[in-house]
Amino acid sequence: MSKYDHIRLSAYNANMQLPKLGLVLFTFGNVSAADRELGVFAIKPSGVPYEDLSPEKMVIVDFDGNTIEGGLRPSSDTKTHAVLYKHWEDISGIVHTHSTYATAWAQSQRSIPIFGTTHADHLTVDIPCAPPMSDEMIKGNYEYETGFQIMDYFKEQGLDYKEVEMVLVGNHAPFTWGKTAEKAVYNSAVLETVAQMALLTEQINNNAPRLKDALIKKHYERKHGPDSYYGQ
Amino acid sequence: MSKYDHIRLSAYNANMQLPKLGLVLFTFGNVSAADRELGVFAIKPSGVPYEDLSPEKMVIVDFDGNTIEGGLRPSSDTKTHAVLYKHWEDISGIVHTHSTYATAWAQSQRSIPIFGTTHADHLTVDIPCAPPMSDEMIKGNYEYETGFQIMDYFKEQGLDYKEVEMVLVGNHAPFTWGKTAEKAVYNSAVLETVAQMALLTEQINNNAPRLKDALIKKHYERKHGPDSYYGQ
Amino acid sequence: MSKYDHIRLSAYNANMQLPKLGLVLFTFGNVSAADRELGVFAIKPSGVPYEDLSPEKMVIVDFDGNTIEGGLRPSSDTKTHAVLYKHWEDISGIVHTHSTYATAWAQSQRSIPIFGTTHADHLTVDIPCAPPMSDEMIKGNYEYETGFQIMDYFKEQGLDYKEVEMVLVGNHAPFTWGKTAEKAVYNSAVLETVAQMALLTEQINNNAPRLKDALIKKHYERKHGPDSYYGQ
Amino acid sequence: MSKYDHIRLSAYNANMQLPKLGLVLFTFGNVSAADRELGVFAIKPSGVPYEDLSPEKMVIVDFDGNTIEGGLRPSSDTKTHAVLYKHWEDISGIVHTHSTYATAWAQSQRSIPIFGTTHADHLTVDIPCAPPMSDEMIKGNYEYETGFQIMDYFKEQGLDYKEVEMVLVGNHAPFTWGKTAEKAVYNSAVLETVAQMALLTEQINNNAPRLKDALIKKHYERKHGPDSYYGQ
Repeated sequence: MSKYDHIRLSAYNANMQLPKLGLVLFTFGNVSAADRELGVFAIKPSGVPYEDLSPEKMVIVDFDGNTIEGGLRPSSDTKTHAVLYKHWEDISGIVHTHSTYATAWAQSQRSIPIFGTTHADHLTVDIPCAPPMSDEMIKGNYEYETGFQIMDYFKEQGLDYKEVEMVLVGNHAPFTWGKTAEKAVYNSAVLETVAQMALLTEQINNNAPRLKDALIKKHYERKHGPDSYYGQ
Repeated sequence: MSKYDHIRLSAYNANMQLPKLGLVLFTFGNVSAADRELGVFAIKPSGVPYEDLSPEKMVIVDFDGNTIEGGLRPSSDTKTHAVLYKHWEDISGIVHTHSTYATAWAQSQRSIPIFGTTHADHLTVDIPCAPPMSDEMIKGNYEYETGFQIMDYFKEQGLDYKEVEMVLVGNHAPFTWGKTAEKAVYNSAVLETVAQMALLTEQINNNAPRLKDALIKKHYERKHGPDSYYGQ
Repeated sequence: MSKYDHIRLSAYNANMQLPKLGLVLFTFGNVSAADRELGVFAIKPSGVPYEDLSPEKMVIVDFDGNTIEGGLRPSSDTKTHAVLYKHWEDISGIVHTHSTYATAWAQSQRSIPIFGTTHADHLTVDIPCAPPMSDEMIKGNYEYETGFQIMDYFKEQGLDYKEVEMVLVGNHAPFTWGKTAEKAVYNSAVLETVAQMALLTEQINNNAPRLKDALIKKHYERKHGPDSYYGQ
Repeated sequence: MSKYDHIRLSAYNANMQLPKLGLVLFTFGNVSAADRELGVFAIKPSGVPYEDLSPEKMVIVDFDGNTIEGGLRPSSDTKTHAVLYKHWEDISGIVHTHSTYATAWAQSQRSIPIFGTTHADHLTVDIPCAPPMSDEMIKGNYEYETGFQIMDYFKEQGLDYKEVEMVLVGNHAPFTWGKTAEKAVYNSAVLETVAQMALLTEQINNNAPRLKDALIKKHYERKHGPDSYYGQ
C-alpha cells in the first residue's frame, strides 16, 4: 500500500487505453496522472511494453522531475510532463503519442484547420502546431525545454490550455492533456480522428473553407458552454 | 414491461452496430427507432458510452421532441430525428454518425459523385451534400433547424427521401434513414464505403467519369425496381 | 447426402474467407466452386449475410445458369459465373467482390500498372480493366453479358485466363478465378493488396516507372515457370 | 532435440509476429534467426502459411545457403539472408516483408525522407532505397545477388549496417535486420509506420522540410548514443 496507489492505477489504466485505441506502436507513447495535493504524478516507465505494464510499475515523480518512488526509470519524456504540471495548474493528466495522422501533421509543421463540427465539438481554433525548437533548446535540457516550447507558443498565440487541450510539436508529435488522465487519452483519440478527417477534407476539396464562426460557437457551447446540453 | 420495449430493443441493437461497423469513435453517433402507431421513437441517451448502453437506457421521445419515458437525457441530436420523423412519414429509423470518410466529404461541402455500381446498387444520384445552415438557423433552434435544412435541400433538389436514404450536412456529418433502424445503420455503412471509394477513385483518375445512365438504372433496379431479383 | 456436397462445402469455406480477409461489406461478394465432371457449380445464395450461411444453403447451378438443386435463389451474379465456367474450361472457382481499392481502380477505368514484384509474383502484365459495357448489353441479359465482356476483352488484348486470373470490370468491380475456389479467393486478396500498393506508389512518385522486364520474368517464373522454386 | 532448437524457436516466434503486426498477407514474408557460433540460421520454409508453422518446420541453413537440417525447402529468399549473414558479422536476425507502405516506397524508387523524430529515434538518415538490380544480376543468381545489391549500395552511400538496419530494394520490397530476429521484426514494424507517416506528411505539405540536424542527433542519441537514457 502506498499513498500513490490511486494515481498509479489511474496512469496504468490510461496507458493501457493507448494500444486499444490504436494510438501507439510498441512503446511510442506515455500517459501520466497527477495528484495535485501531493504534488506528484505517476508515469509509465521508459521502454516497457504495454503488455508488461502493471499499476505497480508506474513511477512516481514530482513536478520538478525528481523520481519519488518506483524501481524503474520513468519515461524519457518525464520532464515535459513535469513542466506542464508545474505551470498549468488545472491539469491532472498528460498524454504523449506518435499517433499516425497527428504526427504527420506535426511533421508537416502545419496547424490542423478547423473544417467541421467534429473539431468544433472539442475546440474553437485550429489545433496548434508549435514550431520546432531552437538548436540551443534541443542541445540543452531537451525534454524540459519541450514543455516550455509548448507553453511559450500558447502564450504567443493567446491560447488557453483549459480550452485547447492538445498541441502538435513541429517535426515531433502530439501532446494532449486534461483534468484527468482518462480525459487526456480521450483528447488524443479525438485529435487523431480530426487529423485524419482534415487530411481527407483537403484531398477531396483543396479549397475547403474553414468552419464558419456561428457553427464553431454553437458546437463548442453544446458541449462546453454554461448552457451545454450534451451528456448526462 | 413497457409498450415501448420493442423500439427500445430495436434502437439498442442498432446503436450497438455502430462501433462494430467502425462508424463511431466514443459517443459520436446515435440511432433511433420509431413506432409510427404510437407516434414515438427510442433514441440513444446523450454522451453514454456504447459499452454502458442497455435497452432500458434508450429514451422515448415523441415527434415534437418531448421526452415521454426514460430517466436519461436523450441524444443532443434528438430534435433533428423528431423533425424528420414528423415530416417523412415512411421512415422508422434514423442514424447520425461522424464516420471518417463521409464526414470528410461533408467538410469538403461536396456531394459524392456516382462513380460505380456499388453506389448505384443503393441510389441513382450523387449522395447529396446540403449546404451549411444560415447563421440565423444555427443561433436559433439548431438541431430542430438541421432537420429542416435536410428536408428543404431535398425539396429544392427534387429528391425523394424514400429513394435517397442518406445526406451529408455541409461542414457537419452524415445522416441516414430507412424503414427500420437496422436499415438506417446499413445505409450508414454503405455511405462510408462509397465515400471512401469515391475519394480513391478521384485520386487514381482525377477525370474519372460518372457512371453512365444505363448502368445506374440497371443496378438500382436489380435491387429496388418492381422486377428486382436481388435477395430472397 | 448429395453428390454436390463437396462443392457446397468448398464454396461455403471460400465464401467465409471473404469477410475474414476484409474483402466484403455485408453481402457485397460471392464465390462459386465448380465440379467440371458434373458440369455444375455451387454458389452463394443472393443477399444472405455471411454469418447466416451454411454449406447446405449453397445453390447448385449448371453452366447455362439453371438452378439444379437448392431452396434459395442463387447470387444475382450467377450468370456471369456460368458463362465463364462454360467457356474457360480450366477454372473451377470464381470470386466477385467490391473490395475497396480494386473497385476504386475499376471506377477509375484504369488497368493497374505493374509497379513491383508483389504484382509480378502473380502475373506479368497490368491487371486489365475491361471497359464498361455497351448500353445494349446492359439493358439486355446484363449478368450474362458481363461474362462475355470479360472474355471479349481478354481476347482483344491477347490475354490468357490461365495466366491472368483477375480482371476489373470498368465502373463496376473485380472478378477473380482459379483452379479452385480457394485459389480464386487468394487472387482476390492479392488483387486488393496490389491495387492499394499501386495507388500509394503513384502518390509517392507520380512518374513511378513500370517494373522492368527482367524482374517481371524472374519473379513470375520463381512461382510459376517450369523451374519454379517457390513453395514445397 | 537438436543443437539448433534455440534458433528454430527464435525464428518461429519472430515469423509469427509478422501477421500479428499486420506486415504480411498470406506467405509474403520471412524471418531468419542466426547462431553465429554454429555458423547457421533458421528460416521459414517456403510458401507455408503462418498458421501451419511450428518451430520444427524451420529450416537450418549455413551462410553459403546450403540446407543443413530440415525436411522442407527453405524460403525462396534464403540466399539473400545467407549473403547478408556472411558479410555483415554483427547481425543475427533478418526480415523480408512486402508490407504495404514500405513496398509502395520501394516501388516508387525513392528513399524515405527523414521528416520527424519517430524516424530519428531509429536512424539518422533517409531510409535508403537501393536501385533495381541490373538485368545480368536478375537473370543470374537472383536472390544471392539481391544481398550484394543491398551491401554494395550501403558501401556506395557510406552507410553502416549497424546504424541503418533497414533498406528498400527498388521495385521490390523492404529488408530489415538486427542483433536478434526479434529486433529485426521490430525494425520492420517501425519502417512500415515511418513509411506511412512520410507519405502522409508529403500529402499534407508537399514542401515539408527534412528534420533539422540538432533534432536528428538528439533523438538518435536519446535511444542509441553512449549517454542514451531511453528504456531500463
